[in-house]
Parts: sequence; C-alpha cells; structure tokens
Amino acid sequence: MQVVFQITTAGEDMHKAMLGQIRNLLTYAAGKGQAVRVEVIVHGGAWPLLMHDSPSANAVAVLAQDKVAWLICRNTMNSQHVTESELLPFVEIVPAGVGHLVERQMEGWAYIRC
Amino acid sequence: MQVVFQITTAGEDMHKAMLGQIRNLLTYAAGKGQAVRVEVIVHGGAWPLLMHDSPSANAVAVLAQDKVAWLICRNTMNSQHVTESELLPFVEIVPAGVGHLVERQMEGWAYIRC
Amino acid sequence: MQVVFQITTAGEDMHKAMLGQIRNLLTYAAGKGQAVRVEVIVHGGAWPLLMHDSPSANAVAVLAQDKVAWLICRNTMNSQHVTESELLPFVEIVPAGVGHLVERQMEGWAYIRC
Repeated sequence: MQVVFQITTAGEDMHKAMLGQIRNLLTYAAGKGQAVRVEVIVHGGAWPLLMHDSPSANAVAVLAQDKVAWLICRNTMNSQHVTESELLPFVEIVPAGVGHLVERQMEGWAYIRC
Repeated sequence: MQVVFQITTAGEDMHKAMLGQIRNLLTYAAGKGQAVRVEVIVHGGAWPLLMHDSPSANAVAVLAQDKVAWLICRNTMNSQHVTESELLPFVEIVPAGVGHLVERQMEGWAYIRC
Repeated sequence: MQVVFQITTAGEDMHKAMLGQIRNLLTYAAGKGQAVRVEVIVHGGAWPLLMHDSPSANAVAVLAQDKVAWLICRNTMNSQHVTESELLPFVEIVPAGVGHLVERQMEGWAYIRC
C-alpha cells in the first residue's frame, strides 16, 4: 500500500484526527503483514503542524520514526514566511504540494484528503 | 464505474449533499447503461448517519436497496461506543476505514471525498 | 500530468486558495517541461465562482486562456436555477459532476479535492 495524505487546515482537531487515521492505517497494514508507504503533504493553512512548537510535534515525530514522510510545500513556506530552521528536523520540502500529490497519484499511489 | 465515497462529518447538510450526489451518479450511470459499484466509508464524526435513528435513515436504506454498500469503520465504532445493534441492519463493518479506502484505490476504484 | 479538481464550497477564500494551487501547479509543470491537463469540476455550493459577476472572474478567465477547463454540473445548475447565459462564456456543462470525476479517475487522472 502506498498512500499520500493531504492536509490544508490549521485546526488541531483536524491534525489529531489525521494522526489517528495514520496510526490506524499502520496498525491495519501491520496486522495484514503488508508493507505500507505513507507521505503527508502539508500545505495551505496546515503548516503549523510541522513547526518545532507544534502541539502535535511529539506525535508527528513518533510517526516519522515509523517511516511516515512529512512533506511541506515550498510555496506555502514562502507565503507564510516559514523558514527551514523553524520546521521539525525530519520534514522534507517539495516545490509544489499539489504537484507532488498529482505525481504520486499518477504513479499509482492512493490519495486521502483530510 | 467503481467508486468509494468517504464521509467524516456529522452535519446533516453534508449527509444530504452526499446522498444527492450518489443518486445523481446512479442516474447518470443508468442513463449510459453502465454498471456502477458504490461504497460509502463512514468514519470520524459521520457515524450518526448510519444509526437507526438517523434523520437520513430512509434515504440511506433506499440506496442500500439500490446496491450501494454502507461501510462503517470499527475504530470509529470503538472510539464512539457505537454497537452493531444500533446500526441500520445492512451496514457492514470494516476494520479500518482509511485502510479500506487505500485498498480500493489500489484496486483501481475512484475516490470521492465528501 | 492530468488532474481533475473538485470544488463544492461557496467561500471566496476557498476559491482563491484553489486558483493559487492551480497556478502553482502550472508553474511547476512548466518548470519540468511537462504537459499538464487540468479540469475543475464546480458543483454543490461553488457555482458562484463561474458566474459573470464572480469576484474571481478575471482569475478564472486567465486560467481558461492557459488551457484550464472549467466544468459545471448540470444537476447543480438545475437545483440553483443557474442558466447558461449567466455563466462565464468558456464554461462547459457536464451532466453529472461526480460522474465526471469518477470517469476521469477511471481513465487515470489524478484527483484533488479542494
């Protein structure tokens, strides 16, 4: 299974719901003995999720250790004046969040819109 | 055509909008003489839609008779303390809503996020 | 790259966010020298976006010149009493917005839910 999540909203409730969904997905895949690749594209209003001072920083870091990739959109960083040093250390930057979502789907990945 | 809908919100307006979309899709497919398979994954806050006392219970049941499959996530049932006996009788339970959405897409189904 | 966007909400902020995402996607594809086809399915509450008096009419028209296709759902037009003459001149009408979204995905297009 290969899946790319998209999140664009600032609300902590939405962030927590997504984190729970990803944990449930990993548990489900593990129970079936299936490999799973998960990427989360963070753009629009969701950027605070990946900052050092994010209320969900610990949960995000735990999932990163579990091989979940956290990707932020460069366009969002530019418009929100977010610098790399403010981001959690494992966050990767993609030039265009939507471009990445399209490419992953064209490569056969599933898509979950949060 | 094979399509899996995802709904996670509690609002009746959203439920009604989705029910209308599904009816329109069935009409469209019938008009083209095309077979269509529809599944709806209900999780997160959307679980009241599938309860016996749901304001949309009748509309949901009519679509179930028209071969639309209604699936609820076991994780949501557990977190919301929903029991099988409270659900409409045709509702099926999947172990992980997001897992099912990913699997269907990997099998080539289309995805509609409500 | 081939991608179909779906928008169903009335809010101008959401419309502007989507317009920005499409512009960023076109820039990204151009930078990679990749062809990109973009369709936007407008249904539900989003129909004001495509009216002559839409606050975003200019931005929509600029993207139309850049080969973005703007599609409105006939079911939405009927329920909202929108006539063809009220729409921006380049807007195309599809019989069922969700039907079109499903067909495009079955043809291999990516899907972005706004």
